[in-house]
Amino acid sequence: MIRRMAVIGVGLIGGSFALALREAGMVEEVVGCGRSVGNLERAMELGIIDSFTHDVEEAVADADLVFVAVPLGSMENVFKSMQSHLKDDALITDGGSAKGSVVEAARAAFGRLPSGFVPGHPIAGTEQSGADAAFSSLYSRRRIILTPVEETSDDALAKVTALWNSCGAEVTVMDVDHHDEVLAATSHLPHMLAFSLVDYLAGLKENDEIFRYAAGGFRDFTRIASSNPVMWRDICLANRKHLGAMLENYAVALGSIADALHDSDGERLLQIFERAKSARDKYVDNA
Amino acid sequence: MIRRMAVIGVGLIGGSFALALREAGMVEEVVGCGRSVGNLERAMELGIIDSFTHDVEEAVADADLVFVAVPLGSMENVFKSMQSHLKDDALITDGGSAKGSVVEAARAAFGRLPSGFVPGHPIAGTEQSGADAAFSSLYSRRRIILTPVEETSDDALAKVTALWNSCGAEVTVMDVDHHDEVLAATSHLPHMLAFSLVDYLAGLKENDEIFRYAAGGFRDFTRIASSNPVMWRDICLANRKHLGAMLENYAVALGSIADALHDSDGERLLQIFERAKSARDKYVDNA
Repeated sequence: MIRRMAVIGVGLIGGSFALALREAGMVEEVVGCGRSVGNLERAMELGIIDSFTHDVEEAVADADLVFVAVPLGSMENVFKSMQSHLKDDALITDGGSAKGSVVEAARAAFGRLPSGFVPGHPIAGTEQSGADAAFSSLYSRRRIILTPVEETSDDALAKVTALWNSCGAEVTVMDVDHHDEVLAATSHLPHMLAFSLVDYLAGLKENDEIFRYAAGGFRDFTRIASSNPVMWRDICLANRKHLGAMLENYAVALGSIADALHDSDGERLLQIFERAKSARDKYVDNA
Repeated sequence: MIRRMAVIGVGLIGGSFALALREAGMVEEVVGCGRSVGNLERAMELGIIDSFTHDVEEAVADADLVFVAVPLGSMENVFKSMQSHLKDDALITDGGSAKGSVVEAARAAFGRLPSGFVPGHPIAGTEQSGADAAFSSLYSRRRIILTPVEETSDDALAKVTALWNSCGAEVTVMDVDHHDEVLAATSHLPHMLAFSLVDYLAGLKENDEIFRYAAGGFRDFTRIASSNPVMWRDICLANRKHLGAMLENYAVALGSIADALHDSDGERLLQIFERAKSARDKYVDNA
């Protein structure tokens, strides 16, 4: 049971974690921290938080659990602000979509990391953002990846795992770098493809007409291109090593389809499409 | 009112058109034609067709309306089989996703095209196929593109338009080549990206793990990679001119994201993502 939780960044991710923990009876009091008064007042109305402050130091001062759910580009400043104000035994975790950069930012702020620091990434979300988008079942039956570092204590890892489990989530533990490689493939690369496709089509002279004749497949395929641009800029920059390599390799794969097309090589196209369909059907069956 | 309709290929597209026309009271009798006895018997059970034959000549012999809904690669043979057996005033239309190749196949079979020939493309579908997948409202509020050729009579175009309208669909008339260009952008290119992404990821050594940590965004993004591989091989080959050009240009757009990433150019990434989000949000608002 957490007596006092501080949520830094009360949006979809932070707000939903607070709501889920409240619903599970795992937290007594929640203080929200952020820049927008409007969003924080809304979070009060929605019962996500009990009070708020714009001051990270004040928010974390008496907190047993700190959840950092700000864009990756703001992590380092948040860590710096909280650094000398945390309780010794506070649990600190986050919701960042890339983990190498979060750990780097924390090291830059803390030097040696607190033993209560458990970097994490909930594999959940929608294209919506802000406190209004938060809901208590966001993490139900979703995967959470925790990437403990050298300094992380077993006790802290067990406690953060238990908190996520109480929200109905399934926790996996993974190495920081491996997390970033897997997520580059499964999330960051697809977002790049969707953003670049929509931007490319929007730049064609007949773009109005093109979008008019787009069907349901296109709508689904491009849904992720409606995601928050600032958040995704930060994710790209944070995970540029792995994402860059994935983009390069994917370009080769795409080039191979282009070659098959150029050669009217139906057999090769069919092979690619069949392998893809079978992998995708298998993934959906298992999902 | 159509007295007798022949559906060549009683799958999702052909079966749904027959069901919708029946429901609208626009057709008296439907004869199905295809290779699989099982599928045709199922179509009888489902009330899609009243009788069936494996013989295209027999199916079209007394038909007032012929709907050809076979894979693009089979169009030419179907046209050749029906060529000398059609009624003089028969309406002939089709559901092919690329139109240049259908017109070419028809010219190869017919020489001068019948005045009742109205090439068409319903922008509708699911990943399912076969008679079992057909349903009468598939075309409700969907767009149908008709691409009349030189020989097509105004009367035939008006009649085919009226039939689609009776299914609740909205008809647009477009030039054959322009259709193929627009669809390359909006449908064929996204399918190539989805197929190649899933195939690329499936080929990575940690592919099981990658698919395990894929979230909802990935599921939506790759839905179209579960489409029928044979159908898509045919579409690619049929529209290779426009699709090839699109693929080439898209590769340049993707390269530009890779460059921005390589240079850690957050400003450029943000521009691309913002333009994409705004175009996609606008498209969804209008859809």
